[in-house]
Amino acid sequence: MPAQTAPRTIMGVDPGTNILGYSLVSADKNTIKIISTGVIQLKKTDNHYTRLSIIFSRLTEYIQTYKPEAMAVEAPFFGKNVQSMLKLGRAQGAAIVAAASQGIEVIEYSPRRVKQSITGNGNASKEQVAKMLQSVLKMETLPKHFDATDALAVAICHHYSGKRIAQKSSSYSNWADYIEANPGKVKKL
Amino acid sequence: MPAQTAPRTIMGVDPGTNILGYSLVSADKNTIKIISTGVIQLKKTDNHYTRLSIIFSRLTEYIQTYKPEAMAVEAPFFGKNVQSMLKLGRAQGAAIVAAASQGIEVIEYSPRRVKQSITGNGNASKEQVAKMLQSVLKMETLPKHFDATDALAVAICHHYSGKRIAQKSSSYSNWADYIEANPGKVKKL
Repeated sequence: MPAQTAPRTIMGVDPGTNILGYSLVSADKNTIKIISTGVIQLKKTDNHYTRLSIIFSRLTEYIQTYKPEAMAVEAPFFGKNVQSMLKLGRAQGAAIVAAASQGIEVIEYSPRRVKQSITGNGNASKEQVAKMLQSVLKMETLPKHFDATDALAVAICHHYSGKRIAQKSSSYSNWADYIEANPGKVKKL
Repeated sequence: MPAQTAPRTIMGVDPGTNILGYSLVSADKNTIKIISTGVIQLKKTDNHYTRLSIIFSRLTEYIQTYKPEAMAVEAPFFGKNVQSMLKLGRAQGAAIVAAASQGIEVIEYSPRRVKQSITGNGNASKEQVAKMLQSVLKMETLPKHFDATDALAVAICHHYSGKRIAQKSSSYSNWADYIEANPGKVKKL
């Protein structure tokens, strides 16, 4: 009898100070299913500390409920100004601590890396990413908020990355990944 | 018999990504005593997520042990570049969430505000702040790290602020606070 591998649960988070997108997916090779996805609305309170506390407590709750093996975070490293980056850093810090304090691995991916992993194009539009996700996840309708879509995308990006690492050059989710992993096999013309 | 007011415990935090200063002080009017102060060395691990997790868990431990009524955080809002501000934001986020998740009030003070509150001069040097702290706290020697001194300073800054709010213009810790609270009484020449 062949060994059965249980699908792994991955959490995706797109942290923001006004709205935070989250996703929990069950991934097994090429079969990826949504367990839960949505957004945490933070605009309801003006208190910045309460917002951070909500991020921490809600994500902790999801981690304890669904027990993901990892939290993939969409993390832009450069923003408009230092003030907005400090705020974003705080939201990221609250999300990361929720995972780290539960012993969950945290992995960050740049928006470009996520787009590249999903569509093969690091400059893909949000609509292109959403369309590809709809196909991969066999969804009839997409989540209402792009933040939830982004959280799904980063979770799937992590799954693809892990698959590539585990199986080594035997399978590539897209052409860009193939090129990245096989620099000698593709010649620049 | 006059009503006795118990001294209040204030936690001060100077968050950083390499070293974090903390303090716990017992404050009663003009009598301020150190309960505990020191630094959390974060350089020991290269893993950024582990660092954030250490900040969260150690501060949570101090809060549970000493039950401060508030956490005063020294929070610069403008830094050298967006990259360092994002990292600082994450460290701040981890510290804030430790307090907020325990129901502890968080109050931020800019470095300038802290210096002004302690010495009367918002541009005071670290040495001047340290000297004034030594006098206020009747310390024979100062903490080894300036980060711990900064954490003491922000806790005391919060105590002075609270005192001013509670007693209204009856007492000022320094001239700058007096001017700030009584704009009409001081004329600009």
